[in-house]
Amino acid sequence: MNTNSWVQDQVLNTNTIPVYVGNLAIGAGQPIIMAGPCAVESEEQMMRIGKAVAAAGAHVLRGGAYKPRTNVQSFQGLGLAGLELLRKTGDALGIPVVTEVVSPADVDLVASYADILQIGSRNMHNYPLLLEVGRTRKPVLLKRGYAATIEEWLAAADYIAAGGNNQIILCERGIRTFSTETRNTFDISAICLAKMKSPYPVIADPSHAAGIPSLVPHLARAAIAAGADGLLIEVHDRPEEALCDGGQALLPEVFRQLVHSLRTITEG
Amino acid sequence: MNTNSWVQDQVLNTNTIPVYVGNLAIGAGQPIIMAGPCAVESEEQMMRIGKAVAAAGAHVLRGGAYKPRTNVQSFQGLGLAGLELLRKTGDALGIPVVTEVVSPADVDLVASYADILQIGSRNMHNYPLLLEVGRTRKPVLLKRGYAATIEEWLAAADYIAAGGNNQIILCERGIRTFSTETRNTFDISAICLAKMKSPYPVIADPSHAAGIPSLVPHLARAAIAAGADGLLIEVHDRPEEALCDGGQALLPEVFRQLVHSLRTITEG
Amino acid sequence: MNTNSWVQDQVLNTNTIPVYVGNLAIGAGQPIIMAGPCAVESEEQMMRIGKAVAAAGAHVLRGGAYKPRTNVQSFQGLGLAGLELLRKTGDALGIPVVTEVVSPADVDLVASYADILQIGSRNMHNYPLLLEVGRTRKPVLLKRGYAATIEEWLAAADYIAAGGNNQIILCERGIRTFSTETRNTFDISAICLAKMKSPYPVIADPSHAAGIPSLVPHLARAAIAAGADGLLIEVHDRPEEALCDGGQALLPEVFRQLVHSLRTITEG
Amino acid sequence: MNTNSWVQDQVLNTNTIPVYVGNLAIGAGQPIIMAGPCAVESEEQMMRIGKAVAAAGAHVLRGGAYKPRTNVQSFQGLGLAGLELLRKTGDALGIPVVTEVVSPADVDLVASYADILQIGSRNMHNYPLLLEVGRTRKPVLLKRGYAATIEEWLAAADYIAAGGNNQIILCERGIRTFSTETRNTFDISAICLAKMKSPYPVIADPSHAAGIPSLVPHLARAAIAAGADGLLIEVHDRPEEALCDGGQALLPEVFRQLVHSLRTITEG
Repeated sequence: MNTNSWVQDQVLNTNTIPVYVGNLAIGAGQPIIMAGPCAVESEEQMMRIGKAVAAAGAHVLRGGAYKPRTNVQSFQGLGLAGLELLRKTGDALGIPVVTEVVSPADVDLVASYADILQIGSRNMHNYPLLLEVGRTRKPVLLKRGYAATIEEWLAAADYIAAGGNNQIILCERGIRTFSTETRNTFDISAICLAKMKSPYPVIADPSHAAGIPSLVPHLARAAIAAGADGLLIEVHDRPEEALCDGGQALLPEVFRQLVHSLRTITEG
Repeated sequence: MNTNSWVQDQVLNTNTIPVYVGNLAIGAGQPIIMAGPCAVESEEQMMRIGKAVAAAGAHVLRGGAYKPRTNVQSFQGLGLAGLELLRKTGDALGIPVVTEVVSPADVDLVASYADILQIGSRNMHNYPLLLEVGRTRKPVLLKRGYAATIEEWLAAADYIAAGGNNQIILCERGIRTFSTETRNTFDISAICLAKMKSPYPVIADPSHAAGIPSLVPHLARAAIAAGADGLLIEVHDRPEEALCDGGQALLPEVFRQLVHSLRTITEG
Repeated sequence: MNTNSWVQDQVLNTNTIPVYVGNLAIGAGQPIIMAGPCAVESEEQMMRIGKAVAAAGAHVLRGGAYKPRTNVQSFQGLGLAGLELLRKTGDALGIPVVTEVVSPADVDLVASYADILQIGSRNMHNYPLLLEVGRTRKPVLLKRGYAATIEEWLAAADYIAAGGNNQIILCERGIRTFSTETRNTFDISAICLAKMKSPYPVIADPSHAAGIPSLVPHLARAAIAAGADGLLIEVHDRPEEALCDGGQALLPEVFRQLVHSLRTITEG
Repeated sequence: MNTNSWVQDQVLNTNTIPVYVGNLAIGAGQPIIMAGPCAVESEEQMMRIGKAVAAAGAHVLRGGAYKPRTNVQSFQGLGLAGLELLRKTGDALGIPVVTEVVSPADVDLVASYADILQIGSRNMHNYPLLLEVGRTRKPVLLKRGYAATIEEWLAAADYIAAGGNNQIILCERGIRTFSTETRNTFDISAICLAKMKSPYPVIADPSHAAGIPSLVPHLARAAIAAGADGLLIEVHDRPEEALCDGGQALLPEVFRQLVHSLRTITEG
């Protein structure tokens, strides 16, 4: 074995096939930024935050209409009204929107409003739901289960692909470990391994991993430096009033600085 | 609370006090690269690898003379002969050297050869050893225990500081989690948190975290992008013949490319 | 504080309210044994194994008709035909039956065949499914998510109770940890804590925790000694031919000996 | 393969060779109970608690003279004075004593006072210490590292055996997992697996696993039901005044009831 082949062996080989949302290519080289509030709360809130993230350079607007919450008493999202507000904001700003679907029965409805269907971490093993989004022809953002191996994550993607839909975007969002200093342990290696073992673009959600805003820009920069195809970031302009996960949202101004700081990494 | 103070709250505040090794400052802005083989094996091996890593831009040469190994039958290092070879190589190349000490009784001996004393992950809770290196006046590189919380890690540093030695460099090297796809799970958030909660520089060891070479450059770039003060990287030019951990060592050429690629990140 | 109140503090206080399945009381003192194959495979298989476990002392017959599997290509259960076979076997033997439901849309159908509805570990966070079984008036066996805290597990039970159904039986089945020597790490403390923090009976599934048969009787005995209200055990008479998880099933004869050996513990 | 051989395959095969301390056999069938305070505090304390645990049925008295503590400011034990008090109490009561050694330099001293040398969880990877106790001819109680695999635990025992000392008693004391509801997660399967894969007796320390007293008797009963060869239990009569880990100690009266309740399990 000569030196060149050794070097070859030491380099991560990836073969990512881009996923298209309109003419936005995810996994084609340029990091794609998805940002917005955890939950859709009102028309004013969506328009304020949507404008801010779009101006800062976000390519996709996020916002939850159906929120899977640990406690049955917590705010569970605006449902259909939330879908409508999200769509309206995306159309007004001219950017695509991503939102979560939690029940097989809601898939067609959500697909009629969203450009990208999100499967949350707690539903990665929800096979009837995966099969159902696999029957649509919408791109699917599949978050890694918070205690799933990479093998199980890719096996979950197979459930989606089984229905003929291989427009899959994987999203690392942190795993549960003994460490309680962050909400989850951001598994930066998983981004590389998922790209190596699958043809799917892989993005990172540092907001849920960190659980506190001051770490988010650092984890986001790290993800891009490691090779992630994009980011999913929670942004809120009034985090203290947010109905969901305000404690980990970035302020629009911090988000803007973060997006700006990514340029030196990606041009490297 | 005005916007500025909110933004202030969302930025990681660190107050790192540099540690000096001769006139090399660790924690002063420029990433410091420590590299070399897992174990000192022979004079020729050290000189070949030492030259290569120095030429590629490494600031400190690493090499183990005392190796804590899981199995009692495994190669446990050359001991005193290894210390002498490491010192000789460092002197010939004009760069400082770092090596591990595993027994309180060996601390004075190792301190007479090394510029930086390394405490390995499995000894982070070895309090008699920590107290003993605290009595020297050599900088100490303290690796995080593979299942230690950040609080426990900083409490271990207190054992060193109790002896009057606060020239401490922390090193994140991955934690043990359910994930078996990498040797350990590289905890990128820990780098930021340790810098936030202590005055010590924090470097990263992606080699032990990854366990496979193809991930190392990606994790190394991520660590620097997240704010690490430096890197500790295993390099071997004949990994298939290495007496210890060859499977995770970078080839000198891959290491050279990695060091080069860090420039765009750190100038960001 | 006198000695008596100190002693009081050191004893586990539980206040379990029994759940009734016909006139079988779960959580009333006598350990309840649920046993049978992982999956319903055929009428002959169910009758053979059903007879064996009933003769050995099982109180409830288990058998999966809908199997959530990691891989989309794996056997996913017989569906409706499986429900019919399970019901038929239970009726013939005169014992109640428990089976898993994985989709909200199937809840009414499964409830029309089963005496107890099982929610599997991977669906503990499937809130639409939990709400749906909460609308039935059937006892629900709620397995702990393989990486769920006890707080999250009890919060999942709240989703069921929110629909007015508080006939809930909790089931500890092992958690995912760094240890790979067993399929999961059986969390014996969780049995005690769940009984202390809720009014629900708590049973144990040592089969999924162990992943190998030789540990199952030991874990089962341990669970009863720790205070579990019952057991859920996989039994197969031809494990090498089983369509699902045969590798962890007990032979009927080993199961019989296990049930017999529990007597000395429970009379303690 | 006939039914008998299948049954054979499903039973845990162990081949434990007893370790003798005087004429006390550990691993010979009868559970051996080691009990006492976390730390030796005073002559009166040791005599009061020693009498109580001996009267309740303990076979060995425990008490720490050298305490490895997370924080450098915490009470670190009485050292030599503690060894003397422990020995004196054991002699007065006519029972053997076990105590921890944390530094290779102290091994001969501790061995001159103790009947059993304890290696704590944080020192399981301390190879110089393991080699040193391996050079003595005293039984060694080797606790499992709090994040060690069973393979690593047995490899640590090999370091002791390498010196010619195979009087080794293994002790499971809980592992670090995502669960924070207990101090550690008591890994009951590890007891069975360590017995299956080694010739050493295996005992259990439920006190450190639980971290709270109300769980200890339940975990202790579970360990014996699973096949443990004995228990190591912290007992203190004034837990609120204890200098170390009082929060998890059993009162003598609760300990007495626990020992009594084990009879029905072990006669099973």
